[in-house]
Amino acid sequence: MREREIIAQLRRIATDPAARGLLDDAAVLGDLVITHDTIAEGVHFLPSDPPASVGWKLVAVNLSDLAAKGANPIAALLSLSISGDGRWEAGFIGGIAAACESYGLPLVGGDTIGLPQGAPRVLGLTAIGRAEGPVPGRDGGEPGDVLWLIGWVGDSAAGLAQLLASKHAHGPLVDIYRRPVPFLAAGRALAPHAKAMLDISDGLLIDALRLAEACKCAAAIDLGAISLSEDFIEVRGDRLEARLFAATGGDDYALLAALPAGLDPSTLNLPSGTTIRAIGSLEAGAGLKLTHDGKAVELPEVLGHEHHGHFAPPMGDRD
Amino acid sequence: MREREIIAQLRRIATDPAARGLLDDAAVLGDLVITHDTIAEGVHFLPSDPPASVGWKLVAVNLSDLAAKGANPIAALLSLSISGDGRWEAGFIGGIAAACESYGLPLVGGDTIGLPQGAPRVLGLTAIGRAEGPVPGRDGGEPGDVLWLIGWVGDSAAGLAQLLASKHAHGPLVDIYRRPVPFLAAGRALAPHAKAMLDISDGLLIDALRLAEACKCAAAIDLGAISLSEDFIEVRGDRLEARLFAATGGDDYALLAALPAGLDPSTLNLPSGTTIRAIGSLEAGAGLKLTHDGKAVELPEVLGHEHHGHFAPPMGDRD
Repeated sequence: MREREIIAQLRRIATDPAARGLLDDAAVLGDLVITHDTIAEGVHFLPSDPPASVGWKLVAVNLSDLAAKGANPIAALLSLSISGDGRWEAGFIGGIAAACESYGLPLVGGDTIGLPQGAPRVLGLTAIGRAEGPVPGRDGGEPGDVLWLIGWVGDSAAGLAQLLASKHAHGPLVDIYRRPVPFLAAGRALAPHAKAMLDISDGLLIDALRLAEACKCAAAIDLGAISLSEDFIEVRGDRLEARLFAATGGDDYALLAALPAGLDPSTLNLPSGTTIRAIGSLEAGAGLKLTHDGKAVELPEVLGHEHHGHFAPPMGDRD
Repeated sequence: MREREIIAQLRRIATDPAARGLLDDAAVLGDLVITHDTIAEGVHFLPSDPPASVGWKLVAVNLSDLAAKGANPIAALLSLSISGDGRWEAGFIGGIAAACESYGLPLVGGDTIGLPQGAPRVLGLTAIGRAEGPVPGRDGGEPGDVLWLIGWVGDSAAGLAQLLASKHAHGPLVDIYRRPVPFLAAGRALAPHAKAMLDISDGLLIDALRLAEACKCAAAIDLGAISLSEDFIEVRGDRLEARLFAATGGDDYALLAALPAGLDPSTLNLPSGTTIRAIGSLEAGAGLKLTHDGKAVELPEVLGHEHHGHFAPPMGDRD
């Protein structure tokens, strides 16, 4: 596949340790954590999506990468293509501004370009954070470590499903799809203790498998333990099928952390009200093992999505 | 004009001092210098341009922004859209790799995305540098300071003109258009002494006027003093018309520095062979004054270009 070859070519160039083999959520350069996401109209968002929510989401997904490394956001650069009469862009920038203000992320530069008539908009954001301590990778976990899910999964995929059924759909699930919330404070509290951590952008199962592979371990996950929101349960229920949907839907921006066995996260400095649950563990071996109500569950054919409506995962996630 | 309004909206958000009002070549965050350029097919490069030269140029124009701030390149993130069979991208990445290796710029991350069929490619690069000392802005110059041009102007615009006449054109001017050279070492040597400095991306005259405006001064420039290459003179001559063409053509990536009167740049640690000439000075007042052979020259209608084939200037340059 051509994209696989292109990424292999990039990996051969990106040999600096800061690149982390393009396998992490972000580059880590001393105490700096740097990430970039690009989104395209018709690929990562719908032309009918409110432009302010597209702007908010572009900031939020970048901040989620910083959260997974425990970094404080310090600066952002925006790449903005301008098309049409500028009204879309005004709304988009409003969403960028709201998210930057909410999370204390100063917009310090970037570039604006015009595009040929009719070309889909392409928008990018570089976010820079500063870590206060060691930055967890994806690869430090060991057999016996406990996998903790911070936040919940499924809302965003359920919201997208509602939107694909009707572009006028609205409600709390659509809101989460459009305006995900990065777990910055929880990421900072966990980073000094996490042996490995990442954010769930493509689906809990596929991202858990990536973490396990980076750790040269297997991951065992109890589907019954994963957190679902009341809004999700109201629409989808909480039986096995719904749990598999939630665990593979992606676009969640929850965090997954491998903590040493015996470490009680309630002793850490997590924000009050943080949803955090032990959902499994790392084990010797390889691959992913699922259980539900104490019984083994066969792996679904698709562990995560890169489908329409999803933001592109970082470069390293694509093979 | 809508782009003007959009940039005004961005300026209202970018209030952090690191943003420098979006008026500088790069954001400056402590000792970090950060810049981003985005280019689009059909706007900033031709579909017929060799992809390796598009990659090289994207790196070089970002490094030129770092050069203007005297920063050492430390990291780059690439935003790559993939379209077609991937052969173009392979060539493009080869050019990125060659430029990164030439200038010691580690590629540490980024994002790859697919685009809808037929969409023009959009490519972006974020470059991060570290300054060893104070970072000159555009705004520190005062009346009496001497304006020094590092490098020469006109080659790139002359090369583009050759390409627009025939896409099979080749030769040293086309080479410079396609593979500009950032003045990193000269920028580092000048930065501790420059009261103001920028890189010439849109044309010497328009960029000199921007520097003068930022300094709340007038700029007086002797067109006869600006450096032209032998290749340029061979094709265009060195009379007034040719000099005005060179001074407004843009895409040069030369540097323009305001140094205190009496400072002899040959006493600085410039690389041997650096082309550096005093081309004018800052004066009390406002605007741009041109002379040639001791006579006043009327300002040309267009002081710089943002035409097809040109890389977009940084966000702050567009109004």
